[in-house]
Amino acid sequence: MRVIEKGSIVIKDNIILKISKTEELDRNFTAKKIIDAKSKIVMPGFINSHTHIPMSYFRGLADDLPLQEWLNNYIWPTESRFLSEEFVYDASLYGTAELVKNGIVLFNDMYFFGKQTALAATKVGIRAIVGEGVLDYPFASYTKPKQMIDYAIRQHKEFADNELIDFAIAPHSIYVCKTKTLRLAAESARNNNMLLHIHVAETEKEIKDCIKHHKKRPIHYLNDIGFLGDNVIIAHGTWVDEEEQKIIQEKNASVVICTESELKLASGFAPIKEYLQNKVNVCLGTDGVASNNNLSILEEMDFIAKLHKSINQDPAMLPASKVVKMATINSAKALHKYSEIGSLEMGKKADIILIEKNILEIVPMYNVFSHLVYTINSNAVRDVIINGKLVMENRKLINVDEDELIERAKYYKSKILEI
Amino acid sequence: MRVIEKGSIVIKDNIILKISKTEELDRNFTAKKIIDAKSKIVMPGFINSHTHIPMSYFRGLADDLPLQEWLNNYIWPTESRFLSEEFVYDASLYGTAELVKNGIVLFNDMYFFGKQTALAATKVGIRAIVGEGVLDYPFASYTKPKQMIDYAIRQHKEFADNELIDFAIAPHSIYVCKTKTLRLAAESARNNNMLLHIHVAETEKEIKDCIKHHKKRPIHYLNDIGFLGDNVIIAHGTWVDEEEQKIIQEKNASVVICTESELKLASGFAPIKEYLQNKVNVCLGTDGVASNNNLSILEEMDFIAKLHKSINQDPAMLPASKVVKMATINSAKALHKYSEIGSLEMGKKADIILIEKNILEIVPMYNVFSHLVYTINSNAVRDVIINGKLVMENRKLINVDEDELIERAKYYKSKILEI
Repeated sequence: MRVIEKGSIVIKDNIILKISKTEELDRNFTAKKIIDAKSKIVMPGFINSHTHIPMSYFRGLADDLPLQEWLNNYIWPTESRFLSEEFVYDASLYGTAELVKNGIVLFNDMYFFGKQTALAATKVGIRAIVGEGVLDYPFASYTKPKQMIDYAIRQHKEFADNELIDFAIAPHSIYVCKTKTLRLAAESARNNNMLLHIHVAETEKEIKDCIKHHKKRPIHYLNDIGFLGDNVIIAHGTWVDEEEQKIIQEKNASVVICTESELKLASGFAPIKEYLQNKVNVCLGTDGVASNNNLSILEEMDFIAKLHKSINQDPAMLPASKVVKMATINSAKALHKYSEIGSLEMGKKADIILIEKNILEIVPMYNVFSHLVYTINSNAVRDVIINGKLVMENRKLINVDEDELIERAKYYKSKILEI
Repeated sequence: MRVIEKGSIVIKDNIILKISKTEELDRNFTAKKIIDAKSKIVMPGFINSHTHIPMSYFRGLADDLPLQEWLNNYIWPTESRFLSEEFVYDASLYGTAELVKNGIVLFNDMYFFGKQTALAATKVGIRAIVGEGVLDYPFASYTKPKQMIDYAIRQHKEFADNELIDFAIAPHSIYVCKTKTLRLAAESARNNNMLLHIHVAETEKEIKDCIKHHKKRPIHYLNDIGFLGDNVIIAHGTWVDEEEQKIIQEKNASVVICTESELKLASGFAPIKEYLQNKVNVCLGTDGVASNNNLSILEEMDFIAKLHKSINQDPAMLPASKVVKMATINSAKALHKYSEIGSLEMGKKADIILIEKNILEIVPMYNVFSHLVYTINSNAVRDVIINGKLVMENRKLINVDEDELIERAKYYKSKILEI
């Protein structure tokens, strides 16, 4: 977490070649392109470790409702009307563009027709781990969970040469996947060196139902069926007790806290203090825009840092620098990208964001971590470099036309409102 | 809370003359200046009902610390080094400029040398209720609390013709003001038709100390000494029980919730559900930037709406439109400006903000209230009109030079760091 004042970074191809004080650079050094970062914070890009990007067009479609009413009356009927490859591509192009505007360089997704999300991410220029959803009931063009798993494996191989894209297997949750499905997912992921992405222990009801059906709490259940491992990303983990936390830690799985979504859906408060005491790898996600309703990791940092101070009656709880780690290097570790991104280090990939400091709402700045967590919002993110390539320059996206994206979103909105 | 699509507002001098569908405007109507609001949300400006604007330069000076360490080692020593009329003017100019950038048209302040804050607010063009702090111990150039009260009264009279400014008497809290001081403050405010602004029940410790010293809880104590009335603004009110809430309601006093500050300082969770059940007028404030660390009411809305859903295990708790009222009309009522501002109505003062909707992170929009609370941040606020005058146009402040303000803030930062 070292801060270098007046530093420079040299990028060659997609790699960070050198990081130093500017005065220590070779005087004869010349670069093809120089980005002036004089008034900027230069830092590793944020990682969004749990989201549902193809839900972009559902942002704010229905809010302030009980979960079942929200799902049954709004989200699921709308999804069943619209879900198609074209819809997923368009919505993913929108959502990935929005991720970049929030300074995010990698996202861990869970949805369907993942190939479309992978293509959209590639077009925008952002890294993605595309989790293909797995359910026990027929969905989209699938009739069986094995088809969904096979799709993910097939795409994983198809995109093997794409430096930005990985596929993951994403069984939705223990309440829509049978034990047999979860076992198959886990086994398939391990055999193909893929991540497993799953919602676990999001609500108290889920715990009660799990105990009723399986006679044990979710993490015990998942452990006993051989699901857990260092390739497992647990989204939410709001209701996980200390014994379960120790299992997560032993298995080197990771937990993604989505504070805003968990608060908004009234899921509860994740046991952050206990997770940290038990040395669980905790990272941050925004969840989808239908339940947040934004994709800002800067805002997630603000929420988690402030909330848990009051929960624990301790203003020293979750200091800013620790929260910045959750949004960067912890996520890189969770997503098996630790050796490539999540920090600015020589030899790592150039996934870098530039944040403007010279803004009235940001000045004065005494501590960069404090400002990132408590003061700065995504509008201050000016430039985004992913895998050595500029994908946003001075807030303008390089690879897509924002006006077109906005027009397309408005078109879908009008369609969604037609009933 | 009616929403008019394709509407127009006619302003004459500082008054809203007409609000209607654009097609209903007189075809021969011509205006001296027309502001195109086609892609904008046009709404009443936000009101920040509790803040300490002259603390601008202390933003992020020290964070993640226990309250006493924060005050004793950082805030108080720095204040004692810098507090002067010039410092308060400069910091207030900065802070009021920042308020406007956050779409705020009126703020309720508590600090010292209030005349300087009033002058700065006038320069920027924002409405202010300037609460002059009252303490029992010598502070700044004061040796006795009566001097502070007299100062407030004198300034109140001096600024009587200034349409933007009112003064208030602001006894800091029950723990730094004796009963005699609080009585004098209350009596003086009533005699001079002024507001009373006080921190009450911010922490659990305050309740315990109050019971120890006065044998009763803070609101009972304040009521028994004749302090409470419809001119009283209670900042925080985090630890107020239902019996006390009923007293606040009966006395027509108001409570200002500062969610981010209360979370960050680990003060606890305000009993919003109970306040609403007991029909207490609840409004929103940011507190000072030293304990937030921003002045965004949009962010306060997001925090309060999401937080209390989880606290009450009810996702329908605090629906967005109710929260928007807390940030506008409820505050206007609390600050005795109900007949003038807080809503867009014919005959009210033209205190209006324009928010850009055509932004990637904001599209699509299904419900304007949901978007204001959960999606939009202050950067989307483009134009601010206060008392009929444009004070920000397309995010550029009209009456102050932002670059100069930033340079001045950096100068003070360097001074603050010199020890």
